[in-house]
Amino acid sequence: MSLPRYYFDWAATAPPDAACTDAWDTDMQTVFGNPSSLHSEGKKAREVLEEARERCARVLGLPSESVFFTSGGTESNAIVIYTQLLRQYPTAILSSTVEHPSVRENCLCLEGLGKQIGFIGVEKDGRVSSRTLEKALAKYPNAGFAAIMAVNNETGALNDMEALSAHLRAQAARPVHLHCDLVQAVGKIPVDIRAWDLDSASISAHKLGGPRGIGLLYLRKRVQTLYRGGGQEGGIRPGTENVRGALALARCLEKRASPALLQGESAEARARWQYLIGALKAHDRCTLIPADRTEDDERFSPWILQAAFKGLPGEVMVRALDEAGFAISTGSACSSASGERPVLAAMGLSPDLSLNGIRISQGWSTDREAIERFSEAVTGILRRY
Amino acid sequence: MSLPRYYFDWAATAPPDAACTDAWDTDMQTVFGNPSSLHSEGKKAREVLEEARERCARVLGLPSESVFFTSGGTESNAIVIYTQLLRQYPTAILSSTVEHPSVRENCLCLEGLGKQIGFIGVEKDGRVSSRTLEKALAKYPNAGFAAIMAVNNETGALNDMEALSAHLRAQAARPVHLHCDLVQAVGKIPVDIRAWDLDSASISAHKLGGPRGIGLLYLRKRVQTLYRGGGQEGGIRPGTENVRGALALARCLEKRASPALLQGESAEARARWQYLIGALKAHDRCTLIPADRTEDDERFSPWILQAAFKGLPGEVMVRALDEAGFAISTGSACSSASGERPVLAAMGLSPDLSLNGIRISQGWSTDREAIERFSEAVTGILRRY
Repeated sequence: MSLPRYYFDWAATAPPDAACTDAWDTDMQTVFGNPSSLHSEGKKAREVLEEARERCARVLGLPSESVFFTSGGTESNAIVIYTQLLRQYPTAILSSTVEHPSVRENCLCLEGLGKQIGFIGVEKDGRVSSRTLEKALAKYPNAGFAAIMAVNNETGALNDMEALSAHLRAQAARPVHLHCDLVQAVGKIPVDIRAWDLDSASISAHKLGGPRGIGLLYLRKRVQTLYRGGGQEGGIRPGTENVRGALALARCLEKRASPALLQGESAEARARWQYLIGALKAHDRCTLIPADRTEDDERFSPWILQAAFKGLPGEVMVRALDEAGFAISTGSACSSASGERPVLAAMGLSPDLSLNGIRISQGWSTDREAIERFSEAVTGILRRY
Repeated sequence: MSLPRYYFDWAATAPPDAACTDAWDTDMQTVFGNPSSLHSEGKKAREVLEEARERCARVLGLPSESVFFTSGGTESNAIVIYTQLLRQYPTAILSSTVEHPSVRENCLCLEGLGKQIGFIGVEKDGRVSSRTLEKALAKYPNAGFAAIMAVNNETGALNDMEALSAHLRAQAARPVHLHCDLVQAVGKIPVDIRAWDLDSASISAHKLGGPRGIGLLYLRKRVQTLYRGGGQEGGIRPGTENVRGALALARCLEKRASPALLQGESAEARARWQYLIGALKAHDRCTLIPADRTEDDERFSPWILQAAFKGLPGEVMVRALDEAGFAISTGSACSSASGERPVLAAMGLSPDLSLNGIRISQGWSTDREAIERFSEAVTGILRRY
């Protein structure tokens, strides 16, 4: 590719950040022991692993014994959801209608296994509200589990986790385990797991510039999990521990998830989005999703934007932009194969409009110039198609 | 540590091989896209991933569409075992009594969920025989699944998979899915998945000098698996694909699992073991496990050795050897926390003898000098304890 490329698919994966990964080869050579081994090499690996855990916990304001390393966000979600299969007393499992496939599909799988599954609807802006939460709790008074994501991966819709959590605690007839997918939140917006009163949460390293194959699961209390093995990670996640991955994740979190940094970065992201949203709105054929999303909208993450262009299927737009040197997606990379848009459907969008939806997502190295080039490219494409 | 260290815990994890991992940072920068994304970066990542899959498949003599990347051996085993939860017609799930915890513990978990679990016993040498297999099939004529590992991770006992597989097919009343844990076999002994007529098999990269967090699952036929998500790896293993890990695993397999290389390497390993077994047998206090293991015993992998020393608990021996500069384990790193030795118990060993068991495992860089130093160290320790 001779064109300069502009990357606007940060919600799918972030370009690796050398500061989080460049010690990789060194790490490989110095810490290779199996942390479960009792000899010096094993103990050294154990030390590094526990240090990585403490560093992650510190950034997230959590006790280190509540932090478990997993292979990524998808696995973290699955581990938590399948704990419900082992519950002795049958309770309903709720999830919002806009969750990532790793939550939604696993809930549906549990339904096939005889568990009761219910959904928490969203408002037209794609956010869970106290109203939709109450409605779900009224329909499923036996709810024992609820999954609500912090930032939607297709629209950037922000859920007010602190308020929803408090509301859930106050309204539910029994204790409800509240799980929150933080994959698009950590490193993007200020996250406060304790203030949000979460029971569990999922984080992925590769969305933060780290390597694939490493993620984190926060668990307020130990629970019995399904997949078993050698008892690693307190029995929560079996398999020889990915020590280098854990270290890389700690570096990512320290670099990307500090509240001070995020405040500055997200203000800059917001300013760039303001420009882009304004430019897109100038096109008659453009509909933001939701349609009433404003230039500086507190309801949405300033890192993700969903928009549709009349008469232009999302896939065509993705291809046209790719040819022009811009990488974007339609929706979740995790559902790009199916062609369905359950998140947009849950927001009440027509299949026609959904078909035209594209997702633009920016990251820490996106600059104003890239946004301007992107906006020009869209204008050019709209002229041609 | 100022002492030169000798590593004899290859069965727990192998020292990273630069040839399989040193392109890591370069890979990180050039192939960062999400393979599910439709733009150039995504397509490039998809190409590299599929190339890695083809390279793995080629080494293993398999169609590439039967090769799925996972996070490691433990997950590969779990994925296969939990497919049984989704089977509509109840059949018994069999596993040998000496399987790795990631097989054994998951079978027990399924039992807790109401599935019928049966065990295939082993002879005193720790190997599954046609006799023990027949016995299990007679007891569970409704068997639909059987897990038999190729090389035991604690004793090195080799199962004759080709013969056992043929016997299973001939004796079983109905089709039985035969799963084989190849974690201690691939890169150590010649493996022929097709000749062994396996339905599924597990491989781990970090036992081959590759990074943690990547493994492989062979599946002869697509099956419905439990954990869901974005449909990656044909729905078999969800989560953003670990492209660099897959590439590293392909490099490991090409370097370590070629039959020509293995023939030479395992002959050398066998010669070193011959020396070590001879030296250990010279000590009155030493009992090999099993006791009749000979210097050059075709029943065992030449990479793993289990032995016990009278009056010397395995953990004490591990500590004493560690202080002398040698890394070994008692048994599986994956069960070192529990202190139990189910594999040795299954072989009919007394708890007393089991308590004294240690595992010595060598690898491709182990040389005769290291074996001699190790043997001297054992002699010294036996004098002191």
